[in-house]
Amino acid sequence: MSDTISLPWASDFHVHLRQGAMMETVTPMIEQGGVRTAPVEYEKQLKALAPNMHYIMTLYLNPDLTPAEINKAAAAGITGVKVYPSGVTTNSDWGVLDFKIYYPTFKAMEENNMVLCLHGECPSDAEKGICILNAEERFLATLRELHADFPKLRIVLEHATTKAAVECVKSLGDTVGCTITAHHLFLTVDDWAGQPHHFCKPVAKYPTDRDALREIVSSGHPRFFLGSDSAPHPRRAKQGEKPAAGVFTTPILIPLMATLFEKLGCLDKLEGFVSTNGRKFYQLPTVSSENGIKLVKNQLDVPSAYSVKSTEDTVVPFMAGKDLPWSIAE
Amino acid sequence: MSDTISLPWASDFHVHLRQGAMMETVTPMIEQGGVRTAPVEYEKQLKALAPNMHYIMTLYLNPDLTPAEINKAAAAGITGVKVYPSGVTTNSDWGVLDFKIYYPTFKAMEENNMVLCLHGECPSDAEKGICILNAEERFLATLRELHADFPKLRIVLEHATTKAAVECVKSLGDTVGCTITAHHLFLTVDDWAGQPHHFCKPVAKYPTDRDALREIVSSGHPRFFLGSDSAPHPRRAKQGEKPAAGVFTTPILIPLMATLFEKLGCLDKLEGFVSTNGRKFYQLPTVSSENGIKLVKNQLDVPSAYSVKSTEDTVVPFMAGKDLPWSIAE
Repeated sequence: MSDTISLPWASDFHVHLRQGAMMETVTPMIEQGGVRTAPVEYEKQLKALAPNMHYIMTLYLNPDLTPAEINKAAAAGITGVKVYPSGVTTNSDWGVLDFKIYYPTFKAMEENNMVLCLHGECPSDAEKGICILNAEERFLATLRELHADFPKLRIVLEHATTKAAVECVKSLGDTVGCTITAHHLFLTVDDWAGQPHHFCKPVAKYPTDRDALREIVSSGHPRFFLGSDSAPHPRRAKQGEKPAAGVFTTPILIPLMATLFEKLGCLDKLEGFVSTNGRKFYQLPTVSSENGIKLVKNQLDVPSAYSVKSTEDTVVPFMAGKDLPWSIAE
Repeated sequence: MSDTISLPWASDFHVHLRQGAMMETVTPMIEQGGVRTAPVEYEKQLKALAPNMHYIMTLYLNPDLTPAEINKAAAAGITGVKVYPSGVTTNSDWGVLDFKIYYPTFKAMEENNMVLCLHGECPSDAEKGICILNAEERFLATLRELHADFPKLRIVLEHATTKAAVECVKSLGDTVGCTITAHHLFLTVDDWAGQPHHFCKPVAKYPTDRDALREIVSSGHPRFFLGSDSAPHPRRAKQGEKPAAGVFTTPILIPLMATLFEKLGCLDKLEGFVSTNGRKFYQLPTVSSENGIKLVKNQLDVPSAYSVKSTEDTVVPFMAGKDLPWSIAE
């Protein structure tokens, strides 16, 4: 086994960069983690903070996003539209309950070759037996239906966490892709029960679900790719009466993936998962490992926390205080 | 519907009273919550703190608890023996992995008419697909086996949280009972994800599981009874990097149960659940509602926290800051 891996700069197809001081802190860390391509909703400030980054522009689905607006957006270079079913995540004011009302918009997206990114969870509803553990599985019927109704529309099921989701995406056509986070490849429900820094939504689920995620990335399936869903919160928002949901992996992302893929014996699938697969699905230009990143077998000491610029806050990363065998050479 | 309910003093067949300042704080609250019977492992200090209480003496299963010791314990008035499968709860140093090695002890318990109290969860083991969500269901085969091998031994499955456990206990003979906590009748997984004061072990599970618990108590099944598993922790232990497991219901226990039973339309089953059923199973003398407690329709304002005696700590109760329609008349 070589002690060096040359990779193209990676792509993270789902990441939260926040605003204000947290954004200023986190945005430069994307590159530190080995990534130079990420989808965002606002580019200008981010470009100033991390000039090497390639930002994929996205919008959130909302009632103003008419077919005419989709045509304009596509002409302006917008790549994708994100959808949050109502109530399933925080900050989803434009959450969508009934997808049928957006069918004209989806039709326009299909015609414009845009990508629909789905937060694939039904809202919890105890009367219907829906909770955070089965919310993703319950959503899969909707994914199947959307794909059947818009077979040419590229759809990404974001941050899949279950065996059911993996099997569903595998069973669908080439226009359906799927992101997997770094942390869901590590965690199960036992890890976030009583550990707020591992608490995220969708929540990590059963060991068999984690196994399914690990198997699909190990297999190198071309429609599964990295979307970290990295979501920084100040420490005080994670440790309190109501810990915020989110795991922060941005600054260690690619070394973390190399660590796992080595453990799973599939380092040969690393480049596909963190770069090639997603770029192909998104129809982005190929990037070469020349002038890319070099992973080396030098221990990476993950800080116990990072300071948030211009504040007293800190943000605790995944694997805080631990070490990873792989790091990115300067 | 009457605005007054007369009940015997209730029995709580599973409660944690801690030690030191927390014990001094919590023990007098048992009676405040409407309860005068509880199982404990150490009586002397507790008696001084709450002289009206009737304590049922129990031991923890451990390698020194030979059949000879069981005979002595029974003669000394010990009622039951508690078992924690290894690793499934905190403070379970004497956790048990292989029940077969304790069969002579169980035989002696059966002969002495003692009660075996099981924390019914298998230890988490990702390799075997076991996690905190299916740990109880996986344990049920062991419960069935113990009951088959010791049909006359009274066994209590403690703090059942799943539909599977309810159905299993129902299917077994009259020597198998089951406690249900107050909080598991209210919570699902959605309530403790991101809410450390609702985090306990066993964790609350699916809405269908909560429904099953509610149905069995509504039905008045005689082998299901209250064991609150109330477990106070200082606020700082609940809100931090590693929130401790436990929900604290002791000071509001019976008003809380009245509130739920009224909502479920089964107030006529309240006395059975909080008093009669458990006392019959434990073969304790009947207690009358004369000189018992009187629940009245006077709003109970649940404090946002209680001070822990002689310390700066506080302990946050279930339903903190909310109000209950029922309270106990002075």
